[in-house]
Amino acid sequence: GQAEQHGMAKNTYMRWRLPLVCLLWEVAMIVLFGVFVRFGAEADAHWEEEKRGMNLTSDIENDFYFRYPSFQDVHVMIFVGFGFLMTFLKRYGFGAVGFNFLLAAFGIQWALLMQGWFHSFKDGKILIGVENLINADFCVGSVCIAFGAILGKTSPIQLLVMTLFQVTLFSVNEYILLNLLHVKDAGGSMTIHTFGAYFGLTVTRVLYRPNLEQSKDKQGSVYHSDLFAMIGTLYLWMYWPSFNSAISDHGDAQHRSAINTYCSLAACVLTTMAFSSMLQKKGKLDMVHIQNATLAGGVAVGTSAEMMLTPYGSLIVGSISGIVSTVGYVYFTPFLESRLHIQDTCGIHNLHAMPGLIGGIVGAITAAAATEDVYGKEGFIKAFDFTGVYQTRTPSIQGGFQAAGIVVSLLMAFAGGAIVGGILKLPIWGDAAAENCFEDGVYWEVPEDEESDAYHMHNPDKPASP
Amino acid sequence: GQAEQHGMAKNTYMRWRLPLVCLLWEVAMIVLFGVFVRFGAEADAHWEEEKRGMNLTSDIENDFYFRYPSFQDVHVMIFVGFGFLMTFLKRYGFGAVGFNFLLAAFGIQWALLMQGWFHSFKDGKILIGVENLINADFCVGSVCIAFGAILGKTSPIQLLVMTLFQVTLFSVNEYILLNLLHVKDAGGSMTIHTFGAYFGLTVTRVLYRPNLEQSKDKQGSVYHSDLFAMIGTLYLWMYWPSFNSAISDHGDAQHRSAINTYCSLAACVLTTMAFSSMLQKKGKLDMVHIQNATLAGGVAVGTSAEMMLTPYGSLIVGSISGIVSTVGYVYFTPFLESRLHIQDTCGIHNLHAMPGLIGGIVGAITAAAATEDVYGKEGFIKAFDFTGVYQTRTPSIQGGFQAAGIVVSLLMAFAGGAIVGGILKLPIWGDAAAENCFEDGVYWEVPEDEESDAYHMHNPDKPASP
Amino acid sequence: GQAEQHGMAKNTYMRWRLPLVCLLWEVAMIVLFGVFVRFGAEADAHWEEEKRGMNLTSDIENDFYFRYPSFQDVHVMIFVGFGFLMTFLKRYGFGAVGFNFLLAAFGIQWALLMQGWFHSFKDGKILIGVENLINADFCVGSVCIAFGAILGKTSPIQLLVMTLFQVTLFSVNEYILLNLLHVKDAGGSMTIHTFGAYFGLTVTRVLYRPNLEQSKDKQGSVYHSDLFAMIGTLYLWMYWPSFNSAISDHGDAQHRSAINTYCSLAACVLTTMAFSSMLQKKGKLDMVHIQNATLAGGVAVGTSAEMMLTPYGSLIVGSISGIVSTVGYVYFTPFLESRLHIQDTCGIHNLHAMPGLIGGIVGAITAAAATEDVYGKEGFIKAFDFTGVYQTRTPSIQGGFQAAGIVVSLLMAFAGGAIVGGILKLPIWGDAAAENCFEDGVYWEVPEDEESDAYHMHNPDKPASP
Repeated sequence: GQAEQHGMAKNTYMRWRLPLVCLLWEVAMIVLFGVFVRFGAEADAHWEEEKRGMNLTSDIENDFYFRYPSFQDVHVMIFVGFGFLMTFLKRYGFGAVGFNFLLAAFGIQWALLMQGWFHSFKDGKILIGVENLINADFCVGSVCIAFGAILGKTSPIQLLVMTLFQVTLFSVNEYILLNLLHVKDAGGSMTIHTFGAYFGLTVTRVLYRPNLEQSKDKQGSVYHSDLFAMIGTLYLWMYWPSFNSAISDHGDAQHRSAINTYCSLAACVLTTMAFSSMLQKKGKLDMVHIQNATLAGGVAVGTSAEMMLTPYGSLIVGSISGIVSTVGYVYFTPFLESRLHIQDTCGIHNLHAMPGLIGGIVGAITAAAATEDVYGKEGFIKAFDFTGVYQTRTPSIQGGFQAAGIVVSLLMAFAGGAIVGGILKLPIWGDAAAENCFEDGVYWEVPEDEESDAYHMHNPDKPASP
Repeated sequence: GQAEQHGMAKNTYMRWRLPLVCLLWEVAMIVLFGVFVRFGAEADAHWEEEKRGMNLTSDIENDFYFRYPSFQDVHVMIFVGFGFLMTFLKRYGFGAVGFNFLLAAFGIQWALLMQGWFHSFKDGKILIGVENLINADFCVGSVCIAFGAILGKTSPIQLLVMTLFQVTLFSVNEYILLNLLHVKDAGGSMTIHTFGAYFGLTVTRVLYRPNLEQSKDKQGSVYHSDLFAMIGTLYLWMYWPSFNSAISDHGDAQHRSAINTYCSLAACVLTTMAFSSMLQKKGKLDMVHIQNATLAGGVAVGTSAEMMLTPYGSLIVGSISGIVSTVGYVYFTPFLESRLHIQDTCGIHNLHAMPGLIGGIVGAITAAAATEDVYGKEGFIKAFDFTGVYQTRTPSIQGGFQAAGIVVSLLMAFAGGAIVGGILKLPIWGDAAAENCFEDGVYWEVPEDEESDAYHMHNPDKPASP
Repeated sequence: GQAEQHGMAKNTYMRWRLPLVCLLWEVAMIVLFGVFVRFGAEADAHWEEEKRGMNLTSDIENDFYFRYPSFQDVHVMIFVGFGFLMTFLKRYGFGAVGFNFLLAAFGIQWALLMQGWFHSFKDGKILIGVENLINADFCVGSVCIAFGAILGKTSPIQLLVMTLFQVTLFSVNEYILLNLLHVKDAGGSMTIHTFGAYFGLTVTRVLYRPNLEQSKDKQGSVYHSDLFAMIGTLYLWMYWPSFNSAISDHGDAQHRSAINTYCSLAACVLTTMAFSSMLQKKGKLDMVHIQNATLAGGVAVGTSAEMMLTPYGSLIVGSISGIVSTVGYVYFTPFLESRLHIQDTCGIHNLHAMPGLIGGIVGAITAAAATEDVYGKEGFIKAFDFTGVYQTRTPSIQGGFQAAGIVVSLLMAFAGGAIVGGILKLPIWGDAAAENCFEDGVYWEVPEDEESDAYHMHNPDKPASP
């Protein structure tokens, strides 16, 4: 309490700590990549010879051409989408874009290793191709989500530590779901959104700051910061069809995922606008809702988009998720903060947690409702990969396993978030005092401009204006 | 007049009207999609079986891989391109991006239905795939264009009503051109730009506001709003080759469209810069021209890009359209406003209407000039689809039909715009008073920042500063 | 000196000069395109017939589908990436984005011709396809790099003149490297970055302005201009894998290039952040480093990305280049300015010159170290194109030629830059006086906004505030 109230007691000096962590970890990555990571068959120069063995008649059959455009879209979502979405704060744009950049750049390296050990390990080597790059970006997406909950309140070192642990736990959870439970989740409603959001919410609960109202004046937006955030929103919204279809099976599954997601997101915009206006006394639209709740439709079809959800099914799911998300911003977020002490800067509970749960449930129902009639005999087997030991799985059993996937993701998120939150609470990571939260000047050289007077920091090396 | 002069008489309260329209219409979409919309063969899980019947040897032959990258580029043009292009106004950035988002999200749903009934209707169902998504985005593009004329002067409900009608009329016009006249217009010079722009200009004429100079101070840009607008400009400019090639025939036609458009746009930038400097006494460049007229080259090859226009032909068309468009901004826009009472906020007459006409005419000439020598025997038939009942069409007849397509588009735009403008004039839609135009505060919660004093609104719930 | 000190003596009036250059040159382009440029086989309507001869069984084998998505990413890098990266200056955003737009739009036309004569010339015609568009963008990329050194200090006419000469010299240098020396350089470490950067640095040395400190107050950034610049940074960073793989051989080579670049860039972010914090007394991160040095990893694998550099090799190269680049910003840039009179506005020496050299060297080493074991027998021949007269080249000889390519690029850059710098020094091009550098108001109509008082210009038509 005492330390919290007097920011000067907090040591946010990064000069040796941050470089040390970055450099040591990068060296570790180099060593581990040196030992483990090699090109997969389709990226290796031997491919010229091997493609005959792979029964490929043309270079265009290389997985690169099936997935690279989607990969680039996903890449934009992670770095520009999440990065700019979080620039809405008036004085935390550098931190939003810059720390997101840092944690994602580290995270994708560590994810290539973690996911590689679980899924692409052959004869002692991790063999990577474009699909691994997409999966690494996906994994990091869950960290970006968690970052949204603690935005403005943590040091870059804390973010790197969280990334290290969260990527690890993500990979374990993903392995349990995809390999042990044999669950479908191509767009990651469960693995990315549910897990990432509840993990982040648990972390922010553990890091609860009782005096955060001291930086209340910096928690809002200014006119132009809201426009920067819309860049993030729109890139997430536009490319979400690529996100949900990026790792689906070649052909109709990728095609279908994109269509379902397109429809769901379109519907979501309308219900978000409706409820944003309706829930406000003056009837005016709120940029916070437009920036966030319009995306809930993409989250909510993450599991089912590659299934035969159908376009009208997507409209229904998108409509509902827009409503739930907007209502969440108006009613749940204040409740979570005041009653449960969950300080959720970006409202990830509304954008990722609840829509992620909806996505998991819709996926379970859609799987349980699958019939050979709807999918075709071959399509049915291909869509759910009912081959080998899973040959005898019925849709309803699959639905049950899908539901189990939600529960596992939640448990992993709560347990992992609690442990990682505890680690991040140690007083060695250089987080800022409550009155300096949401302020770039703590960790960044900030140019002196006409606004700088208005938003001066309360810290020793820059005294408040007289 | 009286009501116009005293803004307080205008009721811009959206709380029940906007939610009601959004929710009712979304429910209607769900019902109609439920009855009509299904996955096309290439997106349906039955594809695994059907692709044998479709004579496809590999998943890569799925139309998804031919068109999805172009689709995503078009998607960015509609939402980021048009949205940010219109953020140039100093205090209408939320409305520009946000209302564009709203109307486009509704419009693509309604366009999937309308265009589906005309073009993808089979056994009582609309079968959709990636090409339908592109076409829906195209259709909405024409609404975004019309939005440019009335930007800052209409309520979100008016925009939704306009979208409903314009998408309907667009689809009818498109059907007449593509199916009845058998006209080529892959990049939409006629169907999208000519129709959309003259429709919007007619609407804004009907909605003429005699006292608009009361909000003159808000019709300009500020330094940063001009940079936001350049994001829109550049994304439109860069992705226009994808726009014009997105629905062309597979292979050489898509390839050719992209090259022609690339060339036309490059030339257009140079003539725009030249005339922007030349037409100004001080010789300085004007951001309005750079933001808009540089794009005219894309519009002006919309019809002919997939034909054998040739790269130098594209340079000529691009050069001319840049000149015409810039001259339009300097001389025509003020004339249209003062003499014809056409208040065209974004200058769509210069960016879409005139270049659209040029595009239609160039298309007619290029078609009329086609020879088997230039196209090759098979290429000639394929390029103009001279098969079936059109087997006997000659290039000059095709040129005549192309010209007829321009006329039909103009007539549909004028008639449709007049009717829809009349509907929008009804005093029930909640548009703002003249002195509150171009001001986000009317429909949006706007953060209080250092600029807010300077741009206070004149409305009841926020009195002018003392 | 005298003229430099009294800006009023400088004539920056563009009204007749700029339009004249733009229009004459565009006419020249049209004539030259008319004489020389035609569609390549895959973009020509005859393709329908020719594809049988080309042994292609499907439209998807058209090069368009192999390269168009990468082309669009490269296009974004040139226009949004470079354009916005340079908007970091507080009052030069219009010039950064707008002049980059102008020079690139002219440059791609001229590059299509120059590179066409060298590489795509057949029976008196230049035959173009999507690969030519990529190469034209690449060529212009080297001009955008050079622009970074002289940003804010030159008139648009000077930029056009520089573009004319630099594109010409680029094409000659590229021809020497790729055709005469048979060097590999798909991502352009030597042809684009080394050549472009040292060319630009030589030009800025020749144009040395002794009194530039008179505009010191405008050489910095403001809060929002730094965020605009991050848009440029991130698009360059995200799409660099496309840049380095865009013109590699179909199949594994494109796939491999993307993976290597992805890895290198990820590592580069961590070492940049580490050194940015470490080299600053207060330990705070500097946006200049984050905006620029994070990209060095893409430059530094430009030559070797398509080779079997391996993911861990990429991490090493990326890590080192991030360090070198950041150290460059802190120590070399001030040294170059004070001692060598090289005024490098954007620090291209750190972002392109040194990493470009690293890239050339790493490429030479990687080539020299190639073995049939690592590449496979066929892959080895294909990767280095050891066919025809080059059948007997060994890896070590190839490594020697690669090294020679670096030297040639450097010599071309120094010689060309000196000559072109001399031409640009002529007092006829309308550059601004030292005290008006880095100020949009010289060449642009700038909206009057709240900031305009603070940054008034010192020029005749706008007197300093009383």
